[in-house]
Amino acid sequence: MIEPHSSIASRAPAGAGPLVVGVDVGGTKIAAGVVDGRGHVYGRVKLPTDTARPEMTLQSIAAGITAALHAAEVSPSHISGVGLGIPGKVDPEHGIGLLSVNLGWQDVPVKHWLEEALGLPCVVENDVSAATLGESLYGVGRELGGLANLVYLSLGTGIAARAMIEGRLYRGTNGLAGEIGHAIFVPGGPLCRCGARGCLEALAAGPALVLQAQEEIQAEGDSLLQELLDRSPKPTAELVFEAATRGDNLARQILAEAGSHLAHAIYLLAVAFDPQVVVLGGGLAQVEGPLIEAIQFGVAQWAEQSPVFREVLDPGVVRLSALQQDAGILGAAALVAVKG
Amino acid sequence: MIEPHSSIASRAPAGAGPLVVGVDVGGTKIAAGVVDGRGHVYGRVKLPTDTARPEMTLQSIAAGITAALHAAEVSPSHISGVGLGIPGKVDPEHGIGLLSVNLGWQDVPVKHWLEEALGLPCVVENDVSAATLGESLYGVGRELGGLANLVYLSLGTGIAARAMIEGRLYRGTNGLAGEIGHAIFVPGGPLCRCGARGCLEALAAGPALVLQAQEEIQAEGDSLLQELLDRSPKPTAELVFEAATRGDNLARQILAEAGSHLAHAIYLLAVAFDPQVVVLGGGLAQVEGPLIEAIQFGVAQWAEQSPVFREVLDPGVVRLSALQQDAGILGAAALVAVKG
Repeated sequence: MIEPHSSIASRAPAGAGPLVVGVDVGGTKIAAGVVDGRGHVYGRVKLPTDTARPEMTLQSIAAGITAALHAAEVSPSHISGVGLGIPGKVDPEHGIGLLSVNLGWQDVPVKHWLEEALGLPCVVENDVSAATLGESLYGVGRELGGLANLVYLSLGTGIAARAMIEGRLYRGTNGLAGEIGHAIFVPGGPLCRCGARGCLEALAAGPALVLQAQEEIQAEGDSLLQELLDRSPKPTAELVFEAATRGDNLARQILAEAGSHLAHAIYLLAVAFDPQVVVLGGGLAQVEGPLIEAIQFGVAQWAEQSPVFREVLDPGVVRLSALQQDAGILGAAALVAVKG
Repeated sequence: MIEPHSSIASRAPAGAGPLVVGVDVGGTKIAAGVVDGRGHVYGRVKLPTDTARPEMTLQSIAAGITAALHAAEVSPSHISGVGLGIPGKVDPEHGIGLLSVNLGWQDVPVKHWLEEALGLPCVVENDVSAATLGESLYGVGRELGGLANLVYLSLGTGIAARAMIEGRLYRGTNGLAGEIGHAIFVPGGPLCRCGARGCLEALAAGPALVLQAQEEIQAEGDSLLQELLDRSPKPTAELVFEAATRGDNLARQILAEAGSHLAHAIYLLAVAFDPQVVVLGGGLAQVEGPLIEAIQFGVAQWAEQSPVFREVLDPGVVRLSALQQDAGILGAAALVAVKG
């Protein structure tokens, strides 16, 4: 059930200094690792998220933490705290998961429950905020020096952005700054799980790409995409990527359109935040490919049309995450250092 | 040539404490005043901006400063510095006006020239940044306490926004954070003075409203709007406001459409910054009226469609400037305190 995430340097060396555990809680997987003060991750593990009931989810999280400690061969007594990135709306001050559609959570006392269960101090943050912090401290942001203006755009099952403003995470007044996944891009467009129509997430997130593929193969008839979808019991956006890479026209069209909406989002984030970089992270931005190409193409078009923002939208501005899946673990771990 | 801005409390009382001069440099008018540490403005003056050559403009600015000191009955020896808000792109560190379409400026050494001319230390900032600081420190922001997240949207000859992030002005990496006036809202739309097509400024700023009125009366024939425009040698957006208030349908349509674009801009700024308030300032937002009503109506519609942002777009969020024309003077004055 528990997959070791990497077999290299799994064990934390003796004398690695103060250690914390970072946990990235997703709707389908929980990733955890033991992190030292320089941002090295030891004992990475990944396990499925049990979303049957909130208490089961909390038990999955506790199991992930224990498994990471085991894989890193570290005793809990050497751990100064646990940082957790959780999807949806979070109250970081009280450590409560206020609302998460993916986890089916409402007002779950994460910090309290885990501190009781593990005997370790816990800090809770929104998952995209945690990944933004991770990318800023240990990924693309580290290359830019300490006080970067960085926008992190997470593309996966959901879509959300967060900004680092002069080296500090900006959450906004209601914790919603950068929640561009639920900004309406096509009024009256496809229904989003938030209840609105035409949100960016309903146009370009993973489930939206699969839905478009399923709807359009019925209209268009035979295609490689249809073949791949028919073979898969639980189709994911990766199938659309695969079909596009293998030249399927319908898949390429779907990704071109999603990329165009995402480029528009990046343009609007650039107008608002004038960042040094926009980092693309999350499951849909793991590797270069047709979606990333479509995004880069769209951003270049906006730059060409907008003389004022041409320097903001320089070709090097949009970059893939340097940390990928570790961004969430490292950012969550950094919360412990930041907060305690 | 010099109009006293207000006849009340013009003279600075003896013992008013440390005094600075704040100057708001516009494309047509320069407003200046003497400001004390509590944000009281004395000796307000307004004079026309001479934009024939950069040196003439600098002479107008110096004349404005001298006139304000005279009106406040304050000797330059009691002034600790001068703060200036200037349209366009500014290098605050070196006090240079890098680029201003309205002033016809490129690389003008404002700080150096004025310090030589006046013998007083000068600080230079973008005009919308200065007004944002003023509104935050002495206007709507003061009512919210010290660490507000506030977006200021300036609506006049130009359109631009700036954000206060947890009580600090955020300029962005290239000084362009919040330059939403040059974000393209209607691809292929009307030509903007920045060279792009369909910028918000080309759709909803003062000159755009006049241009739309002139173009559309030719198509539509007789109207009150036409009568007002014909009578005016140099028509302004105020005529469109007047016609709309008096029931002219064409004028109401023009303002409804501009208001709808501005509401969209406010929605996007709210998604990015999740602010406590969005303050509307500048010449087009002096009083309630058909444009402000159209904006409020549009924002309410976005709120209704977007459950996630409903709390961000609460009816009280969009507010008119509490300081109006003093925002620029007070913010510019505050730069002196902030910087030195």
